[in-house]
Amino acid sequence: MKIGNCLIAQSGGPTAAINATLAGVYSGAKKNFAIGRIYGGLNGVEGIMKGNIIDLSNILDKEENLKLLKTTPSSFLGSCRYKLKGGTEGKKEFKKLFKVFEENNIKYFFYIGGNDSMDTILQLKEYQAQNGGDVSFIGVPKTIDNDLCCIDHTPGFGSAAKYIATTVKEIAADTAVYDMDSIVVVEVMGRNAGWLALSGALATDSSGTCMADLIYLPENPFDYDKLIEDIKKVQETKRQIVIVVSEGIKFADGSLIAEAKTKDSFGHGQLGGAAKHVEAVIQERMGVKVRSVEINVLQRCAAHLLSARDINESYMIGEKAVEVAAEGKSGVMVTTQRGKGDVYSLTFDSTEISLIANKEKVVPEDYMNEGKNAATQKALDYLMPLIQGEIAQAMENGIPKHLVLKDFK
Amino acid sequence: MKIGNCLIAQSGGPTAAINATLAGVYSGAKKNFAIGRIYGGLNGVEGIMKGNIIDLSNILDKEENLKLLKTTPSSFLGSCRYKLKGGTEGKKEFKKLFKVFEENNIKYFFYIGGNDSMDTILQLKEYQAQNGGDVSFIGVPKTIDNDLCCIDHTPGFGSAAKYIATTVKEIAADTAVYDMDSIVVVEVMGRNAGWLALSGALATDSSGTCMADLIYLPENPFDYDKLIEDIKKVQETKRQIVIVVSEGIKFADGSLIAEAKTKDSFGHGQLGGAAKHVEAVIQERMGVKVRSVEINVLQRCAAHLLSARDINESYMIGEKAVEVAAEGKSGVMVTTQRGKGDVYSLTFDSTEISLIANKEKVVPEDYMNEGKNAATQKALDYLMPLIQGEIAQAMENGIPKHLVLKDFK
Repeated sequence: MKIGNCLIAQSGGPTAAINATLAGVYSGAKKNFAIGRIYGGLNGVEGIMKGNIIDLSNILDKEENLKLLKTTPSSFLGSCRYKLKGGTEGKKEFKKLFKVFEENNIKYFFYIGGNDSMDTILQLKEYQAQNGGDVSFIGVPKTIDNDLCCIDHTPGFGSAAKYIATTVKEIAADTAVYDMDSIVVVEVMGRNAGWLALSGALATDSSGTCMADLIYLPENPFDYDKLIEDIKKVQETKRQIVIVVSEGIKFADGSLIAEAKTKDSFGHGQLGGAAKHVEAVIQERMGVKVRSVEINVLQRCAAHLLSARDINESYMIGEKAVEVAAEGKSGVMVTTQRGKGDVYSLTFDSTEISLIANKEKVVPEDYMNEGKNAATQKALDYLMPLIQGEIAQAMENGIPKHLVLKDFK
Repeated sequence: MKIGNCLIAQSGGPTAAINATLAGVYSGAKKNFAIGRIYGGLNGVEGIMKGNIIDLSNILDKEENLKLLKTTPSSFLGSCRYKLKGGTEGKKEFKKLFKVFEENNIKYFFYIGGNDSMDTILQLKEYQAQNGGDVSFIGVPKTIDNDLCCIDHTPGFGSAAKYIATTVKEIAADTAVYDMDSIVVVEVMGRNAGWLALSGALATDSSGTCMADLIYLPENPFDYDKLIEDIKKVQETKRQIVIVVSEGIKFADGSLIAEAKTKDSFGHGQLGGAAKHVEAVIQERMGVKVRSVEINVLQRCAAHLLSARDINESYMIGEKAVEVAAEGKSGVMVTTQRGKGDVYSLTFDSTEISLIANKEKVVPEDYMNEGKNAATQKALDYLMPLIQGEIAQAMENGIPKHLVLKDFK
């Protein structure tokens, strides 16, 4: 095994589970690389280029801090949405990064992130192949979007799905109180992959019936005439209707609903997202009471409602990343596979990063019904295990307690 | 004590604690009125007029149902936003109501609701004074808005405040990850009273510093020039800024930031959109990355994050309502007073409904700083006890379990 130090960094949008993975990588590195130091890179590759790295042992060697980190949302080390440049400018950036690696004797780089971050890993690996160096580059997955390939589900998705299912159930309860016809349109994240909207199907009542009456994903062309038809069909048996839409729902021509020049009944142009547009059109065409709720960033940062399975698996994926590195692998991402049996099980492995970077895993066709407005049993069987169990956060002064980097500066 | 039956109903916007109060009234009535039946009126006075009442004992005599009811959000009995009419039409409505009371031998009517519901109690009392009858009318407070007079704080407010404080903290954590200037504007409910926005001040970091950098209430004139000045001042020491605004923030001339479009049945403007307006102005004037988050109905229905103190007090207020009725009072609302000592305590009483109905308790001037953009210590001392403690909801299939009326039909 190489003698040297580890560097861990986080990238892309924050999630409620990304710090559980950081805790897992730290814990794994501590066990596997007893000699070296474990550094944290601040604000992903953007910060690392500037030499912004810290020794994590001062903070995370304390058991209570490591535990608190596991249930702290957002990116403890900060994040970036930085795409490494190509051409001459790009070469300069790679040189800067490798200089930081060299100066700090970094032999293992763990990058926790989504699609774009895996592209970064791929580029770093390719640059090193051409220019020399012996850093192991390990991609560690996270994204609430669940759109990474070669992995059963992504860390962070389970907690987001649990939050969305819970929230949709609560909104459905809220909207059901009045003895009148009404519609509420709930918008969740997901530009091209509708996994989060699909998880609205987990909002069930005591009989197991889905409380999200209609669900629309970006995978299927959206059509207002069909929407109105769908609503009218639901109205035959129900007065209060809940609709879940992905932010990325599109017309058949591929243009976004959210970018359409929809006007409300007052002739004002609609600002805001997909749900606001859908709200305006329903209002105009049906004259029924309609409201839209955009769950917004809450679905990715609401660590007060965590899926225990998600947090535990996210931690294990972090540990696995170190195991993979210790085996001598590089240019891979940690991946998982679900067991075939009736009882849920997950095995951990790793996959060539080139098979993952810049690819998106969308919702399979048979996860939606023929009408493309509800989840199938197959989808529910896939989703249900991911939101199981709760982890109580530490509380202080009536609100959740977080581990925050600036408290150690 | 009168021999007869009880009728309990719920009215106005749902909250996460209104069913805890229903559980308290039921439990109190069970103890105090051993002989009579305990009915639930569906969809408030609107449903009662139609004779929609049910015997609650079949459901709530089961201890497990009563327990589940305590942590179920929304209105178990359904709700209405119905203003009893005046004139001849109104007389017809009152006659209908009193006919239902008579036919079911109702001697005690408990109406759980906010401002408008207390007006209903007042009107029922006055009608009876002129037309005869011996029903005791008891107002039982609830509203996340905390805007009822003669009560230290309203049931439901504590849970909403806890949810807002937690969510603002999580949003602040989410927005802090990128190494760039950014602003997020969080909109919470509150048309005229800014209690919910004020509770954003409870979102504190480990040093006790408020993570909501600027807070604007409807009580103080809102001015865009001052907003930009305030932001620039915060930017001197901070890059990522969180602003909390009430939906009802107004310019000095009293016009709403978010223009009203339609009016509800009480003549209130339908709001929503203050944050979107503020976002647009900041974007235009400062060119900084800005995002708005409207917490929307989640703040009143998110029973997955309850204040234990709120739920327990809401239950006790329900029990107190029965005690007050048993003492022979009528035309009163249950009220509370906070003890003067350092340790939080609350005493329960009742107050003439005429002192409460159609009045609004706004945030006192000395709860906000001179700049009218932050809470004072006095405000924090008032708010802090109200969000203390957690109550875990029962979970089923990874999401909260609710007690729902249709399961018993």
